[in-house]
Amino acid sequence: MERKLKVGILGATGMVGPRFVQLLDNHPWFEIEFLAASEKSSGKPYCEACSWKLPTLLPECVKHLLVRDPEPGFDAPVVFSGLDSRVAGSIEEAFAKAGYAVISNSSNHRMDEDVPLLIPEINPEHLQLVDSQRKRYKGFIVTNPNCSTITLSLALAPLEKQFGIESACVTTLQAVSGAGYPGVPSLDIVGNIIPFIANEEEKIETETRKIFGRVAKGKIQFHPMKLSAQTTRVAVLDGHTETVAVKLRAQAGLNEIKEAFKNYRALPQELQLPTAPARPIVLKDEADRPQPRLDVEIERGMATVVGRVRECPIFDAKFVILGHNTIRGAAGAAILNAELLKAQGYFD
Amino acid sequence: MERKLKVGILGATGMVGPRFVQLLDNHPWFEIEFLAASEKSSGKPYCEACSWKLPTLLPECVKHLLVRDPEPGFDAPVVFSGLDSRVAGSIEEAFAKAGYAVISNSSNHRMDEDVPLLIPEINPEHLQLVDSQRKRYKGFIVTNPNCSTITLSLALAPLEKQFGIESACVTTLQAVSGAGYPGVPSLDIVGNIIPFIANEEEKIETETRKIFGRVAKGKIQFHPMKLSAQTTRVAVLDGHTETVAVKLRAQAGLNEIKEAFKNYRALPQELQLPTAPARPIVLKDEADRPQPRLDVEIERGMATVVGRVRECPIFDAKFVILGHNTIRGAAGAAILNAELLKAQGYFD
Amino acid sequence: MERKLKVGILGATGMVGPRFVQLLDNHPWFEIEFLAASEKSSGKPYCEACSWKLPTLLPECVKHLLVRDPEPGFDAPVVFSGLDSRVAGSIEEAFAKAGYAVISNSSNHRMDEDVPLLIPEINPEHLQLVDSQRKRYKGFIVTNPNCSTITLSLALAPLEKQFGIESACVTTLQAVSGAGYPGVPSLDIVGNIIPFIANEEEKIETETRKIFGRVAKGKIQFHPMKLSAQTTRVAVLDGHTETVAVKLRAQAGLNEIKEAFKNYRALPQELQLPTAPARPIVLKDEADRPQPRLDVEIERGMATVVGRVRECPIFDAKFVILGHNTIRGAAGAAILNAELLKAQGYFD
Amino acid sequence: MERKLKVGILGATGMVGPRFVQLLDNHPWFEIEFLAASEKSSGKPYCEACSWKLPTLLPECVKHLLVRDPEPGFDAPVVFSGLDSRVAGSIEEAFAKAGYAVISNSSNHRMDEDVPLLIPEINPEHLQLVDSQRKRYKGFIVTNPNCSTITLSLALAPLEKQFGIESACVTTLQAVSGAGYPGVPSLDIVGNIIPFIANEEEKIETETRKIFGRVAKGKIQFHPMKLSAQTTRVAVLDGHTETVAVKLRAQAGLNEIKEAFKNYRALPQELQLPTAPARPIVLKDEADRPQPRLDVEIERGMATVVGRVRECPIFDAKFVILGHNTIRGAAGAAILNAELLKAQGYFD
Repeated sequence: MERKLKVGILGATGMVGPRFVQLLDNHPWFEIEFLAASEKSSGKPYCEACSWKLPTLLPECVKHLLVRDPEPGFDAPVVFSGLDSRVAGSIEEAFAKAGYAVISNSSNHRMDEDVPLLIPEINPEHLQLVDSQRKRYKGFIVTNPNCSTITLSLALAPLEKQFGIESACVTTLQAVSGAGYPGVPSLDIVGNIIPFIANEEEKIETETRKIFGRVAKGKIQFHPMKLSAQTTRVAVLDGHTETVAVKLRAQAGLNEIKEAFKNYRALPQELQLPTAPARPIVLKDEADRPQPRLDVEIERGMATVVGRVRECPIFDAKFVILGHNTIRGAAGAAILNAELLKAQGYFD
Repeated sequence: MERKLKVGILGATGMVGPRFVQLLDNHPWFEIEFLAASEKSSGKPYCEACSWKLPTLLPECVKHLLVRDPEPGFDAPVVFSGLDSRVAGSIEEAFAKAGYAVISNSSNHRMDEDVPLLIPEINPEHLQLVDSQRKRYKGFIVTNPNCSTITLSLALAPLEKQFGIESACVTTLQAVSGAGYPGVPSLDIVGNIIPFIANEEEKIETETRKIFGRVAKGKIQFHPMKLSAQTTRVAVLDGHTETVAVKLRAQAGLNEIKEAFKNYRALPQELQLPTAPARPIVLKDEADRPQPRLDVEIERGMATVVGRVRECPIFDAKFVILGHNTIRGAAGAAILNAELLKAQGYFD
Repeated sequence: MERKLKVGILGATGMVGPRFVQLLDNHPWFEIEFLAASEKSSGKPYCEACSWKLPTLLPECVKHLLVRDPEPGFDAPVVFSGLDSRVAGSIEEAFAKAGYAVISNSSNHRMDEDVPLLIPEINPEHLQLVDSQRKRYKGFIVTNPNCSTITLSLALAPLEKQFGIESACVTTLQAVSGAGYPGVPSLDIVGNIIPFIANEEEKIETETRKIFGRVAKGKIQFHPMKLSAQTTRVAVLDGHTETVAVKLRAQAGLNEIKEAFKNYRALPQELQLPTAPARPIVLKDEADRPQPRLDVEIERGMATVVGRVRECPIFDAKFVILGHNTIRGAAGAAILNAELLKAQGYFD
Repeated sequence: MERKLKVGILGATGMVGPRFVQLLDNHPWFEIEFLAASEKSSGKPYCEACSWKLPTLLPECVKHLLVRDPEPGFDAPVVFSGLDSRVAGSIEEAFAKAGYAVISNSSNHRMDEDVPLLIPEINPEHLQLVDSQRKRYKGFIVTNPNCSTITLSLALAPLEKQFGIESACVTTLQAVSGAGYPGVPSLDIVGNIIPFIANEEEKIETETRKIFGRVAKGKIQFHPMKLSAQTTRVAVLDGHTETVAVKLRAQAGLNEIKEAFKNYRALPQELQLPTAPARPIVLKDEADRPQPRLDVEIERGMATVVGRVRECPIFDAKFVILGHNTIRGAAGAAILNAELLKAQGYFD
């Protein structure tokens, strides 16, 4: 058996860090070599530094690992970054310059011209951008999109592929875990909703167009689809729900659309990447689904769950989607990205 | 001082009934003469028949009033109906036939050709339909729209008036009080959202077009605007929030739209009807408003609160609105309707 | 390999029924032969009859099983009963008379003189009562306690064993899943607590004394401990939390008490019953635990989690406990009871 | 008409500060002269410095008042302190030294030997301690108890007066507003409870004994009653609920206890202090009350609401109580204290 690849986690004590730890525990290809976090945590054993809020147990193998400073100098070629965007930018660059492959969940470098905003099902060919980074870095940076954007993009992917997308109008109902910890004060959300999440609508509207863009002459030409997003926060723990209305370029009946959702498979499924969902899109038939509490764990949180596909008086179709914001929307997305990179030889 | 007009309440023990009681307590024009409800409650004093869940005290004047059967035979010319739609249809007809003015919150007769679906700010001229009801009834029926529809229609009203509306796309986040009592089981909504409310989307899409319709030859020609609604239930007690995107016929800048919201006044304000809000639309400037818990009581729950007016990449503008679903969306709407009817001599 | 024992589930479509199905799926000793429920469900495939609200998938093996009437006539010697207490009494008797072993979670027969109120860790010797039932039944009935009572009794067990219990004062904060479905209306519990659960305090105060009673001359002499319970409902999905203060007969320091909790093992652990928790009591050291959302799944929901053991100015010690109300507090309790019965030859 | 007394608010922008502002708006005796807060807010107009989360509007009179540093130098003899306990100690002393009457809600000086821990209904005679402060201060400090303690003490007061209290065992279910803002993260409390609040149990157990203590030789002899508290946090916005079991010195039937609750009146009611509740204790007869969402506003949040008075197998009686933690439990308590001081000439 091949030896596992050593990986590190930057931002190991935040909201996304523990998800990285949880999902990398017993990973068939990767093993955790180091955990790094801000100086507040640095030097402490992980079990003390981190406020572990997941219902699974803190894995024994990292419990007493000392948290390190987020500076290059580790014996691990790949680092996952769950760093807060206030500090992620320069730390990730430092690691990339030092030769590491930085697989980032942070927003800082997502829109960099030469950085892939990768969803392995949708735009694996964007990985060729990595070569252009060689001018800047010895290593490279690959990012995954914002949590709401991934959930949406997966749902749009089969429609774009078969019918082409002209425009999409989306309203999100986002879980509090998306805001980190301590995140949303309970006084603001118990019995309430907040109809505003800073920068979230902009991210959805621009990231999606980059994800579906074409690579031409080493650059990404953004997809011309029009997107309009309204984002809200609700008293849900995990799982972003989104109502979507979509206008297609080619004509498509509801049944064709449903079939497109149901039959959607892509490269990660073909390569059988360890973290890939068997079905990237799971279509629910019940009238009142998807619901975050009941459906967020489907396909271990790695799929977009779609329901209520129906006609729209303005657009061509409308439907409701759900994705796990800290798994497929964050740590799981980054790990799937790393798996694609490994499968395609980028870590050799 | 003129003597108050005697009124009755049908469905007094349900979800909307207590709101009627609360809002009619000390009303300057009306006084409660009788309370009626299904046979389960009939014969009991109101304080025993009704599970009073409002934070204000059950008014003394009705505490010991015996609940009656919902059958004509009362000394009160006007009846408010908060009856469940499973029984409202025939009971309301019976009262209308017997000569009563039935001011109904129930959905059963809303789409009847000769029944006004009244929002006093928007379509007071629809009241002329009442005359055509004389063929069927000695009295008449006037209805108010569904709670989500009223909140939306009030927000659309100044835009329709100044710029004309071509289409509107709306997603609702609706409070549990909108589902009656016992209504939504806590197991379904604690830490969850339900992306489906039976018939709600259809109501929004059709009622709105009737409300904004023109009366021609004794009939209402529905407004041609296109509407698309997606409705969800969230763990909020009172207050429906809606994200709205709207396409206008005439060009309008964001400032013009905001001014239209801010300056909107209509007939109920002019007539100073007792329950009319001073401002039917309240515009909030803060980035994260309106929020149901903080803003639902504005204008005693009789206004639509609008916030986050901004450009939309697909439509002309998008914004967030909030309305109190059991006040302006139900009992308060019916009482305002009754006030307009009285002011215009329909009860004389 | 021995063939599995066929079992049936009465009340399969209620709140506890699906938990039975979930926990019996792939059980090493038992296999589901039939599902029965009230006439509303009877004749339908289980997937239609049951509103499956658990986040795991409905097991394929029962999906299309037709739900039957709850009347004897099945080829399965053991039936689990999750019937509503409004109907459980006579149906369970009918099955016991017809020769079935009825393993019941319902409250109806718990206080019958000849019916064991069984917690395998605490009172396995109560099973000898089964013999006295032969006068009434060809089969027999064995019950498990109320959910709050089990959680409490498990925590009291090592203290009773080592030090003797004189009195215990308990306040519960109970999850909404304990009230069945639809159960607690969301309007009553969102942002609220309800300080009352019908009959719950009486159950805790009397059942506990039967559980810890001694069998003498074929009857149970109730334990003389004094118990006082106050019960409340909170907006938690699964997991009853209880604050407990306890007065002991023998002197005991906090460390001795903690050791007693930590080291507690009993017959089910010795027999390694499939559903038995490795540790019936799990002691948490953190100052702010146990918490239902984080700790309810410990030991697959089969343990009582204890925390905050500290001195009490009135009693000898006080602490906080947590138990999974629909697993160890209901379906899991009954299954563990059945496992003990099987291990001791009662099904031969 | 007498001129109003000028008052200031220290800690005006925190959790309790806005409640002070709300309750002092249009107060018949006091008017706000200045608002002070930490340097983060200092210099800003109040409407910008403060995150106003109350559903009533921010009063116009303070909207544009510039927030000041919390240092003596104001033209107002009385200051209310809602300062965070991390800074309250020395700031309050500075004001007392400078000659101000400091009416504090903070915990820092509550247990000072010469500082009254005042509940006007219970221990107005403790105000004589103020004289002993003259050694230290030109002005003086008067404190009100912790929110859970006030709610409990009011309920115990008539029982202590008529029967004497030997011991009381209490479990609290406390609202998130008690933890300030941002306070409890939503990730910790949505669908959850936290069975721990730092220092809260100690406060209840010691403050209550000071409140009911006797003044002898210029000092307070603590009441010998035994108290045991367990405190939990629940997903409620406003209103602490407590289950209480109490042992009395004299024998008392349930009816006598209920009458004691019902008839309880004290000095603030006699003096008709503006903020005093007409009934300091409101007894509810319904089996499932008090509930925070329905009952917390009773007597404008200034009463303890008592319900479910019943026999206790261990103590003499048990019952459930509810109090508004930011009104009677904080700002309202301090204002009532100030009213008593004014009525008794302490501000002359």
